[in-house]
Amino acid sequence: MSLIPKGFKFSGVRCGLKNKRNDIGIVVSEVPAVGAGVFTTNNVRAACVDHSRSVVAEGKLRAVVVNSGNANCCTGSQGERDTERMSELAAKGLGLEPDQVAVGSTGVIGHLLDMGKVEQGIREATTKLGDDPRPFMDAILTTDLVEKWARLAGGELTWTQCPNSDVEDAEGPIVYGVAKGSGMIAPNMATMLGYVVTDYDATGLDLQAILKRVADRSFNCMTVDGDTSTNDMLIVLANGASGIHASESELEDALFQVCVSLAKQIARDGEGATKLVEIRVTGTDDPKKIARSIGESPLVKTAMFGCDPNWGRILMAAGKAGVPFDSSDIFLKVSAQDEEFVLFESGRPAAFDAKRVSGALKSDHVVIDLQIGEGDTATVYTCDFGYGYVRINAEYHT
Amino acid sequence: MSLIPKGFKFSGVRCGLKNKRNDIGIVVSEVPAVGAGVFTTNNVRAACVDHSRSVVAEGKLRAVVVNSGNANCCTGSQGERDTERMSELAAKGLGLEPDQVAVGSTGVIGHLLDMGKVEQGIREATTKLGDDPRPFMDAILTTDLVEKWARLAGGELTWTQCPNSDVEDAEGPIVYGVAKGSGMIAPNMATMLGYVVTDYDATGLDLQAILKRVADRSFNCMTVDGDTSTNDMLIVLANGASGIHASESELEDALFQVCVSLAKQIARDGEGATKLVEIRVTGTDDPKKIARSIGESPLVKTAMFGCDPNWGRILMAAGKAGVPFDSSDIFLKVSAQDEEFVLFESGRPAAFDAKRVSGALKSDHVVIDLQIGEGDTATVYTCDFGYGYVRINAEYHT
Repeated sequence: MSLIPKGFKFSGVRCGLKNKRNDIGIVVSEVPAVGAGVFTTNNVRAACVDHSRSVVAEGKLRAVVVNSGNANCCTGSQGERDTERMSELAAKGLGLEPDQVAVGSTGVIGHLLDMGKVEQGIREATTKLGDDPRPFMDAILTTDLVEKWARLAGGELTWTQCPNSDVEDAEGPIVYGVAKGSGMIAPNMATMLGYVVTDYDATGLDLQAILKRVADRSFNCMTVDGDTSTNDMLIVLANGASGIHASESELEDALFQVCVSLAKQIARDGEGATKLVEIRVTGTDDPKKIARSIGESPLVKTAMFGCDPNWGRILMAAGKAGVPFDSSDIFLKVSAQDEEFVLFESGRPAAFDAKRVSGALKSDHVVIDLQIGEGDTATVYTCDFGYGYVRINAEYHT
Repeated sequence: MSLIPKGFKFSGVRCGLKNKRNDIGIVVSEVPAVGAGVFTTNNVRAACVDHSRSVVAEGKLRAVVVNSGNANCCTGSQGERDTERMSELAAKGLGLEPDQVAVGSTGVIGHLLDMGKVEQGIREATTKLGDDPRPFMDAILTTDLVEKWARLAGGELTWTQCPNSDVEDAEGPIVYGVAKGSGMIAPNMATMLGYVVTDYDATGLDLQAILKRVADRSFNCMTVDGDTSTNDMLIVLANGASGIHASESELEDALFQVCVSLAKQIARDGEGATKLVEIRVTGTDDPKKIARSIGESPLVKTAMFGCDPNWGRILMAAGKAGVPFDSSDIFLKVSAQDEEFVLFESGRPAAFDAKRVSGALKSDHVVIDLQIGEGDTATVYTCDFGYGYVRINAEYHT
């Protein structure tokens, strides 16, 4: 996992904002880079979101400093000053200016940061930079059960639980990304964070527009519980250290492969989840809206937890999306464990062996494929919804 | 409970579509009436919805025939013919025309009605009409744990679990309504049904417009799981038999009192629910959208199940609604068991005794009151979200 794009350094240290694990992380490009970022649309958002959006907009982004254990959200003007201070301190230690350093925070809402600890942690982190991204990855996690990373190198995608994830060598540019998130908001903890770095040369490309399109097809197609955190951010840095200039389509495809892998990893690690559920909708004016309506339906998600091929709930969730379609034109199948089962066609339920389908739905990866005539296909990534979600979220106390 | 508006008759019989309980019901006005109806907006909908919408539009509505145990949805052209047949048979037995009889169906999706049973049931039901609405109410229930009715008589509202619900006498017009529903869709079973009858004289009033406004403030403010059934309908009949002509505002207020009582009863009987949660939002351009976003958030609903005063999740759910507001202007309190607790004010969390608030939240009725500056107030009725919901919906099998 130590194969990372040229010209980037990582660090992660523990300053004491949370127990046992690292809680301050830094990633920095050693040379000037092209940066882009997309941020939460939630109206209630943390100071770090506004700060980082403005850093990205100024066009000089070189580094990101992140803390976990405290989201620094709903913390008023003191919270804003603390975000600025994090940026200043990291910049100082890295030999940069504050307007080159984005800030991310994740954790509990409504508490001021313990800045004594944070300042000490940032100072230490700036002295411990290296090639191993694991201390950084550890520093951004909260309730995540597993780490999430993905890497495209030599045209091959590897990721956290990939059989050949110990690749140590590859030719050409590398795209490497890490992410965290297990509910859109974990128990009163905020946030999906994603940081993607590459040594592709992206000069002259509109990286912000590319990232927006990539996010719309990856992280924005993922839903655990329909909730949107106050601190979500996805940042990409391209420093050109490989000497290879990317075409727009080449870079977009590379970023998409890494981002969609991270998004699936987050969905699969959804709170209490037992499986990744991929929902593909083809046809109508807005297949993504229909896919999202299915992916957010508690009735569909509990059916998936129960391994029940409940086509009635899937059709109901499609129908309520507010997108017009002719229900006599519906074809629905589910795929799991290399088997496909048609559940509905030509306006009527199909004959299927419910026990056999239910057995296949025990898989940890299920694909729901809803076709409503001809047209584009949209995919949404979600997870099932079981007792674990209720346990995690009902037994947490403020 | 036998006090009903003058000039209406009810019946309910068991024809064998479901076990043990009645499954065919009829309500009819003995004299011409003014009718109105609102129907599901789901794109996948049952034949009875289209039939009843057209009966209402023709302006001659006098009766409704309902079956439970089978939603007659996703049943193609045979399903349409079966709905027409139900209307014809009921009309024949009641001495009416088919375009005077609306049809409601609730139950499992995707199966053809057993018309032999249904026809026998409708014939029997037309011969058993009487003043007691209970056999009808029994005939429309599916997974509901409790019956739901509300009555406004002599200016006093009584309802199913009301201490003085045995009123037998009152002066003047009466509004009486019954409803069913416990998930928007119960386990693969559809439907919220509401039938409201009154002996107010509504001639010359736009009852359809009045009902639309009433539904928007009552049933459309209720959410159990954000899911919208394929068969939802709310029908009102006003036959004038009291001899009292209603003013528009008088009728609207009377219908609202009955409908909001029914909506609260449905929310409280939500699948697996332990409490009714009333969400009031004041201010912004669209307080109802914010209230609905809070009421549909699984994180807020699991916190309510866990009796956790988790203001962070409430603010997150408000913020993601897509309605602009200034988060420094937020005031949030919860009320339960005759106590009020301020959780958030002036952009910061308030000091509160979390244990004491949590104790109060054990109540079966909690009010969340979110104020974002000045403006209108919108209220949404929902329930909490616990293990029971997962049990009911995950352990059901198609």
